Amino acid sequence: MSAGARGEAGGAGARGEAGGGPALASAVVVGTGLMGASVGLALARRGVAVHLRDRDEGTRRRAAELGAGSLAAPSARTDVAVLAVPPHAVAAELLAAQAQGLARTCLDLASVKVLPLREAAALGVDLGCVVGSHPVAGRETSGPGAARSDLFEGRPWVLTPAPATGAEHVARARALVELCGAVPVVMGPEDHDEALALVSHAPQVLASLLAARLRGADPAHVELSGQGIRDATRIAASDPELWTAILSGNPAPVARVLREVRADLDAVLDALDALGGGAPAGAGGPAEVLRGALRRGNDGRARMPGKHGTPPAAYAPVPVVLEDRPGQLARLFADADAAGVNIEDVRIEHSPGQPVGRVELAVRPARAPVLVAALRGRGWTVQT
Amino acid sequence: MSAGARGEAGGAGARGEAGGGPALASAVVVGTGLMGASVGLALARRGVAVHLRDRDEGTRRRAAELGAGSLAAPSARTDVAVLAVPPHAVAAELLAAQAQGLARTCLDLASVKVLPLREAAALGVDLGCVVGSHPVAGRETSGPGAARSDLFEGRPWVLTPAPATGAEHVARARALVELCGAVPVVMGPEDHDEALALVSHAPQVLASLLAARLRGADPAHVELSGQGIRDATRIAASDPELWTAILSGNPAPVARVLREVRADLDAVLDALDALGGGAPAGAGGPAEVLRGALRRGNDGRARMPGKHGTPPAAYAPVPVVLEDRPGQLARLFADADAAGVNIEDVRIEHSPGQPVGRVELAVRPARAPVLVAALRGRGWTVQT
Repeated sequence: MSAGARGEAGGAGARGEAGGGPALASAVVVGTGLMGASVGLALARRGVAVHLRDRDEGTRRRAAELGAGSLAAPSARTDVAVLAVPPHAVAAELLAAQAQGLARTCLDLASVKVLPLREAAALGVDLGCVVGSHPVAGRETSGPGAARSDLFEGRPWVLTPAPATGAEHVARARALVELCGAVPVVMGPEDHDEALALVSHAPQVLASLLAARLRGADPAHVELSGQGIRDATRIAASDPELWTAILSGNPAPVARVLREVRADLDAVLDALDALGGGAPAGAGGPAEVLRGALRRGNDGRARMPGKHGTPPAAYAPVPVVLEDRPGQLARLFADADAAGVNIEDVRIEHSPGQPVGRVELAVRPARAPVLVAALRGRGWTVQT
Repeated sequence: MSAGARGEAGGAGARGEAGGGPALASAVVVGTGLMGASVGLALARRGVAVHLRDRDEGTRRRAAELGAGSLAAPSARTDVAVLAVPPHAVAAELLAAQAQGLARTCLDLASVKVLPLREAAALGVDLGCVVGSHPVAGRETSGPGAARSDLFEGRPWVLTPAPATGAEHVARARALVELCGAVPVVMGPEDHDEALALVSHAPQVLASLLAARLRGADPAHVELSGQGIRDATRIAASDPELWTAILSGNPAPVARVLREVRADLDAVLDALDALGGGAPAGAGGPAEVLRGALRRGNDGRARMPGKHGTPPAAYAPVPVVLEDRPGQLARLFADADAAGVNIEDVRIEHSPGQPVGRVELAVRPARAPVLVAALRGRGWTVQT
């Protein structure tokens, strides 16, 4: 792929030769778990001299072995310190970094932003050279062994400078984000926490509460699960420790979203109770409450951005039946490719107890008839 | 694929020559929308003489044109009448079918089962030859034009005979299910409605209520949506009319599941309020409430059946970076195939504002190192 080409371009950018942002030649990464080590790998690949710190020497050594940076202490003040520590540890690390003159600019990566800022202000941290940040990327695994230099590639990376933060420091943070291949998005810390409560934290809670209902369920009931509940509960498999910290660090915005959900849920429950008690199921009344809730769900879902941040694209689904044996997917994609049709998305549906699968290819609507004809011509069962 | 082979085998089964179930030579399908027309197509393909009925003559003609059956009225009593009508219309159609001597066995397809049975009993329908049923399959579209002969292939199809239902009629219903390629699952009507409330109806409500929160949201906030909320809200795009009817037809079981969710949600809200009010975020107290909810979500999610109804399989993820240009997926699958590794599942992640994608292939854990080595050998960026 184009890692080499990117590396060269980045080398220029990292040294500030390409004009624009401030030079970014050296960095300290404090905390070398998944996120910190991934930043180290990304920066090192772009020619930045990275120094690694961690309270746990084993973690620090593993990150260094992977190429995330050097074990040596920096000989002078670095350009940037990246604090990849839990939300409640950010303030103390900022204070320590400033006391030690570790870097010109300090950046944290915590997935909540108001709490660390408030705690840092209370501790007397100079916020002028601090930029809060949150790379909206992650993995289900953790530790430096899971780190990747391209973890942030193409992902949004939110920057939340405080009013006191100097423009030079925001520019340096932005340069770091771009060196990591991410897309910088500047917003206020409160704004960030509201946004993440909506698109990440509240969904996590609801997925977990829904999945929890399966715990004591009859296995024969669980066996009837289809793709709907599968998708709706996928993130319920997330790490409880990580998520306890995130939710604890953003309680009020998450509660606001969930309280709105609860108000709607109460209305739905009242409607269901009325229908269960014999209210008419026709237009108006309790059925209308249900219909309204479902329609508002349609409206909200329609706002979800499409692939690569473009507006929601109405891709056409092309469902194909295929047998569960080796080579079927390869053959299918080769046939689609031979037809000159780009596959925008793909989803495999699972069926219980049968050696047959269903793959839904998503393509631009104008290309769907071309693909359907081509696949049928090559013997595929296409369901349209 | 093997449609031809299946058709031949089915011809024998349809005529009862293969021994076992009762002969199923003729059928009437009442209601020729998506589900009814799909049953007609599946049965006709297996050699059953299918007669079509619908209140709407245009719908009936379209289904016949697609090959779902004949427009002629049956000349004698048929083996089975399939009532593919909305839940609240089932009882009246059962009464009419019996008054006309339409078929030996009557089967409905409604996605709730207690309500039609209760209404049929109240109307004086003879339940001895009635088998409630629910093919757990569907599409986001509707109407006969969306029908497919293989809609039910490999899917569970629940049969909910009443205590009064004769064994001969259950056997005939089972034969029909098998002719449609589905997997018969026998359970009581109450049991069915409880199961579907859990795995389908309550998830629909929660996905809709969550998605509805996006309606008035700041576009910059919505833009930070990742794969988590995407998956959690996918079914929020479902048809509000269809789902109003389903929820209205199963109010008490859905309310029971949602009331349990609400109780957990109240506990989470109390915990978040306490944390927002300054309660300590350490072990115990409100943080422990959050941790417990997240852990129970883990436990419930772990019960979800894996591919093809097997127990949850811990497939190994193999994440691959690929550029967004034609032929990449075809090349990737061809390379995986050349390595002799079977891809069990695939998921495409979307990134905002960048022409780079990330594909997560899922393979058996023992095969993952083989695939990783093979893909890297062919120049792919694999993230492990």
